[in-house]
Amino acid sequence: MDVDKKYFSNITSRERAIFEGGISMGALFHQFVGTPVNAETKENLERAIEDSFRLQPAIENVEVKINLTDNTEFDYISLSGDMLDVRIHTVVDDVRAVIRIEFIEELNYPLMYVEEI
Amino acid sequence: MDVDKKYFSNITSRERAIFEGGISMGALFHQFVGTPVNAETKENLERAIEDSFRLQPAIENVEVKINLTDNTEFDYISLSGDMLDVRIHTVVDDVRAVIRIEFIEELNYPLMYVEEI
Amino acid sequence: MDVDKKYFSNITSRERAIFEGGISMGALFHQFVGTPVNAETKENLERAIEDSFRLQPAIENVEVKINLTDNTEFDYISLSGDMLDVRIHTVVDDVRAVIRIEFIEELNYPLMYVEEI
Amino acid sequence: MDVDKKYFSNITSRERAIFEGGISMGALFHQFVGTPVNAETKENLERAIEDSFRLQPAIENVEVKINLTDNTEFDYISLSGDMLDVRIHTVVDDVRAVIRIEFIEELNYPLMYVEEI
Repeated sequence: MDVDKKYFSNITSRERAIFEGGISMGALFHQFVGTPVNAETKENLERAIEDSFRLQPAIENVEVKINLTDNTEFDYISLSGDMLDVRIHTVVDDVRAVIRIEFIEELNYPLMYVEEI
Repeated sequence: MDVDKKYFSNITSRERAIFEGGISMGALFHQFVGTPVNAETKENLERAIEDSFRLQPAIENVEVKINLTDNTEFDYISLSGDMLDVRIHTVVDDVRAVIRIEFIEELNYPLMYVEEI
Repeated sequence: MDVDKKYFSNITSRERAIFEGGISMGALFHQFVGTPVNAETKENLERAIEDSFRLQPAIENVEVKINLTDNTEFDYISLSGDMLDVRIHTVVDDVRAVIRIEFIEELNYPLMYVEEI
Repeated sequence: MDVDKKYFSNITSRERAIFEGGISMGALFHQFVGTPVNAETKENLERAIEDSFRLQPAIENVEVKINLTDNTEFDYISLSGDMLDVRIHTVVDDVRAVIRIEFIEELNYPLMYVEEI
């Protein structure tokens, strides 16, 4: 079966680059929120998140930065969406997109949007 | 701040309808996979998934069906992606989209795609 | 195979009541943290969490209360551990235990402990 | 506040070693089930899971092995509980416990139990 022809001929390459990036960003957020993390484990967790979501369809690259609030009284915290700064790079045919999540001070929540296309 | 103007003026309403639906589908999958479920709790879980993801941006409606394999020897199983049949209806301005996940026998995995736009 | 005899003869009924309750409390926390929720969906989500974790081994009852911070500017928030007030009732043979999670102001984090045994 | 005295004086060190291990095992399972994984990313994911759950209370060590079914037709799969072989080592005062999850063929599901105490 030609999956692309059967299931994706109703949208353009640009739309699919946005679609696949949106899926992976929503997935990443909900998969990893809650994971215990501290300053020592932060980097390995960032790499593990990048590696696992790089496996998803149309994903070329994933960049993850976890912003730990300076919190010296606890030895670890649960990863929350507010700490996530992530860029997911997708490619479909000749179209590239960058999907971003970052905490926006003015909104007081982490926003997912299309940073580049 | 005008969030739409600042962060979403680079994509069309159609693209945003696809984007928001993709985010919510990826999110839904990764949020609920692993939840204990059986024939008795299936319906309430379907409704709870629908209700929680209907809250996300641009989502008009969510329809969730959990396909339990007939499994009489266990009293419950962990929800897996293969069991999910979900439609997420998004609306942005005058554009409506339906994002779908369903298990495709021929592929042997659950596929996320744009069913209607 | 006699599972209890093969895998659980090294611990007492009391210990197993504590063990199964601990498993389910850790599971519940990490399964549902991140779920979108607001004042309208709160009750159904509480019931769905109760129903799904009541399915796990040795669980007799689950009581879930989600404490929403009064947050009028957003239409929903992501469920966090700080909002959870949960009691899991376990029973093994003639031993009953209640495992609790609640946010402790003085500690500034949600603590899991054995409330009754 | 003396947390141990206030919240844990009703159980023994042995019981608490079992309790904390149970919490972490339930947590680990539900946190990571659903994560995309393949043969290339398996090891880093194992290490990231170990590192994050080693942060939880009373945990001395965590050993994670992901059993990938040989599946050459897909480039990745979603981590499921059946693939998990994990040992969590806890210590409370002078008591050590090992909590295990492993897939038991005869039961056809992954069992959590106290392997050593």
